[in-house]
Amino acid sequence: MEKGKNSKNQPGAAGGKREDIGMKHKKSDFSEWFSEILMKAELADLRYNVKGFLVHRPWSVLTMKNMYRYYEEEFERNGHDPAWFPALIPESNFKLEAEHVEGFAPELFWVTHSGDEKLTERMALRPTSETAMYIMYAKWIRSWRDLPLKIYQSCQVWRCDTKATRPFIRGREFHWMEGHDVFATMEEANEQVKEDMEMTENVMHKIYGIPFISIQRPEWDKFPGAVHTYVADSMMPDGKILQQPSTHLLGQNFAKGFGIKFKDNDEIEKYPWQTCYGPAIWRMFGSVVALHGDDKGLRFPYEIAPAQAVIIPITGLGDDARVVKKCKEIKQTLTSANIRARIDLSDNTPGWKFNQWELKGVPVRIEVGPRELREKTVTLARRDTGTKRTVKESELTSIIPRIGKDMSSNLRKAADDFLHKNIRQAGNIKELGLQLDKGGFVKVDFCTIDVEGIPCAEAIKNKLHAEVRGTRFDKIERPSGRCVVCGKTAACVAYIGRAY
Amino acid sequence: MEKGKNSKNQPGAAGGKREDIGMKHKKSDFSEWFSEILMKAELADLRYNVKGFLVHRPWSVLTMKNMYRYYEEEFERNGHDPAWFPALIPESNFKLEAEHVEGFAPELFWVTHSGDEKLTERMALRPTSETAMYIMYAKWIRSWRDLPLKIYQSCQVWRCDTKATRPFIRGREFHWMEGHDVFATMEEANEQVKEDMEMTENVMHKIYGIPFISIQRPEWDKFPGAVHTYVADSMMPDGKILQQPSTHLLGQNFAKGFGIKFKDNDEIEKYPWQTCYGPAIWRMFGSVVALHGDDKGLRFPYEIAPAQAVIIPITGLGDDARVVKKCKEIKQTLTSANIRARIDLSDNTPGWKFNQWELKGVPVRIEVGPRELREKTVTLARRDTGTKRTVKESELTSIIPRIGKDMSSNLRKAADDFLHKNIRQAGNIKELGLQLDKGGFVKVDFCTIDVEGIPCAEAIKNKLHAEVRGTRFDKIERPSGRCVVCGKTAACVAYIGRAY
Repeated sequence: MEKGKNSKNQPGAAGGKREDIGMKHKKSDFSEWFSEILMKAELADLRYNVKGFLVHRPWSVLTMKNMYRYYEEEFERNGHDPAWFPALIPESNFKLEAEHVEGFAPELFWVTHSGDEKLTERMALRPTSETAMYIMYAKWIRSWRDLPLKIYQSCQVWRCDTKATRPFIRGREFHWMEGHDVFATMEEANEQVKEDMEMTENVMHKIYGIPFISIQRPEWDKFPGAVHTYVADSMMPDGKILQQPSTHLLGQNFAKGFGIKFKDNDEIEKYPWQTCYGPAIWRMFGSVVALHGDDKGLRFPYEIAPAQAVIIPITGLGDDARVVKKCKEIKQTLTSANIRARIDLSDNTPGWKFNQWELKGVPVRIEVGPRELREKTVTLARRDTGTKRTVKESELTSIIPRIGKDMSSNLRKAADDFLHKNIRQAGNIKELGLQLDKGGFVKVDFCTIDVEGIPCAEAIKNKLHAEVRGTRFDKIERPSGRCVVCGKTAACVAYIGRAY
Repeated sequence: MEKGKNSKNQPGAAGGKREDIGMKHKKSDFSEWFSEILMKAELADLRYNVKGFLVHRPWSVLTMKNMYRYYEEEFERNGHDPAWFPALIPESNFKLEAEHVEGFAPELFWVTHSGDEKLTERMALRPTSETAMYIMYAKWIRSWRDLPLKIYQSCQVWRCDTKATRPFIRGREFHWMEGHDVFATMEEANEQVKEDMEMTENVMHKIYGIPFISIQRPEWDKFPGAVHTYVADSMMPDGKILQQPSTHLLGQNFAKGFGIKFKDNDEIEKYPWQTCYGPAIWRMFGSVVALHGDDKGLRFPYEIAPAQAVIIPITGLGDDARVVKKCKEIKQTLTSANIRARIDLSDNTPGWKFNQWELKGVPVRIEVGPRELREKTVTLARRDTGTKRTVKESELTSIIPRIGKDMSSNLRKAADDFLHKNIRQAGNIKELGLQLDKGGFVKVDFCTIDVEGIPCAEAIKNKLHAEVRGTRFDKIERPSGRCVVCGKTAACVAYIGRAY
């Protein structure tokens, strides 16, 4: 339904202008649609003169600030304290964990000079903060009483990724969070992996509406320096897989490299067990845009929407001054009720404004015209369903959050359905290829995600341009037959997909 | 009063441990006191292996997060939108404004390589974001309808300052905010300077309790590229001046350098007028610690305190289990009332805990023992005055915020008094020297803060190791006589001080 044309309340409904902000079809050309919405909804500007670096405009930043708030609260609820570590890391820190430096070296940005002077030791911009944090952990941790140590930070990281950059998906600078935990025992570290996955569920899925499946990555696709890597794999509207937060079980590898030791309550000095967890708010924002948006523009879950309601005066039908006054009163009422409300008093037509704020993804539109004024009502329109209803002005502050909650839940369910509809199965390599072409995950019996599985994974990569993402972490799935590639007895059910 | 010894409620009051967390005298040795509190209250760790870079521990970060929140709300209330710009700035951007690059060049950290590859153009870590933002402003601003443009960002900046670094005062990496505004007219830009100073008053003074005097800097001490620089000069407990947020009236200098133009409503293309404003939360945190702390430790204003109340079970007097249960109930009640509360269930003695949380600066301490349990009361102790009172448990959620507000106001008033008592006058250069030795500001008749005043300023610098900070911005002060240095007719009353 095109609101700009159908509402009798809209004298100026500018059919001509509708086209200016009309979006490409998301289904037929997701990639174009995504590029377009970033620009039209003023989320980011790609024209900054460093490749892979985005300028984040207010509409995305306001949203990501809300997203950060929910995630920070979740981190703190789970016993993490916030810290801020330096962005620059001396080269020598990296060398303390051999696999880690090898994995990250090609992506590091190096600071070599200050002013005209060459530094005695070059420093990397943090690509992730293990090597900044763990030299301090070695100073802080002495006794079992100092454990567990659970710290997170919200920051930016820099990686000169050699793959093609894409805004909010893969960039050379991005905004994320990282949790770095230390435990006295392996069991506690293993429990933390589960708690991290629950945090992903509680915030990324329940609040942002981004569904995922939890996966243990294959041996050949772990974080450099980790014992195991666990991830939340999400899906984009084009069926391609996008990795969301991962947790790395570091075991004692870094503790040994960085000399983190503690005296246990049995008086014996031991190396502790570590985990690290990295939710990238920036990439999740990309998923929010991609998964929930439609051909009219953005659709934000109510909780994280930069504006939760927009008030539009229906002017030009008489009584303009009183209409505008009422709109301002309503804004005041909503603000007092902690509803993030805006009012559009620009000189555009109501129809143009409807389209504009739909593009911007505001969950609830409030229309106030002479009729509403007379009847002490307002007209509400929902961004997800487009349905309109007339409600009493006095009910606004109770109804809007309710609509918001319902809308968030609708968006999440639609995303859930999409994910689950796109998990398929294949019994042999040919079927795997056919199913992969439909997008999403394809489950197959697979020899093993241990190193012995590498040749089979490479065969899939070379023949089908797809990746073995790993096995389910949240449940045990038993294979019934043989590996779809090598034909050996399968040890696991692997999830295959084409990924960003 | 030493709470650990005087309260009959404290069986374990550990006189011996009191010394461990006892602080140096702030008055007799501020510098030592300040270093000590950073470590003892676990605000920061100075042992990170890059000079001038701090590791910020949870207690300071929680506070600075609150400080950021208030300042961000103030920015937004005043019409600013948040954005995030890249941390890396190509060298060519800097060269677009000649004075700016000259001023900052010696302090820039340069990124020259990514992985093993040399970059075709080296990039600086942002020391401030004019040169990152204004190339985008040139793309965004086309018409008078795009103005005013008011954007802020919260971020870190990096400056390889050659002066001695001091934690939370002068560092090579620090956390700040920057507002960058563009206007169609000079008048609006001038108004913005005043609005910026009001934001400083509304947040830094009213919320953080840091008083300042507003000053226009002399011509020779402006921001590189600015027409005028206006600052909030605050004072540290040792009487040394510390510059807090500054606003730079950029005029059209950067607009011309960066090609920012707009078509005005008279159809003529013009250069807009710009201002920029830089509140450094990091440095303000340093002032909060320094100004409000005492010999027992930190004293945080209630609004920004990481914990607003701490609940301490008075155990060891019987009924421990019920006491602890009650403490947990109270914590729940306070949390529901949006009071940031903690509970100390460690196995330390109550007396040790009292000292510990006084050190940490928590505004209100809540003691619950068997007596309180019987009487359905709690004992409250204020961190600023040390006074104790017994209140009904049911009144807690209304009384604590009231005490908090009163405490914040007390801390602010004490800081105000200190500042105003330390503004002195001098009629000649000898008196100026004597008054400067007392610390604080000394007002003198001065020839001029235009460039012609440079020789007199240098004389003051060389003879008295003091700086001409500038003239009052918030009011006109007329000189009555002659310049204390050169004897020429004074054009202004200048504020002189020794600064950090």
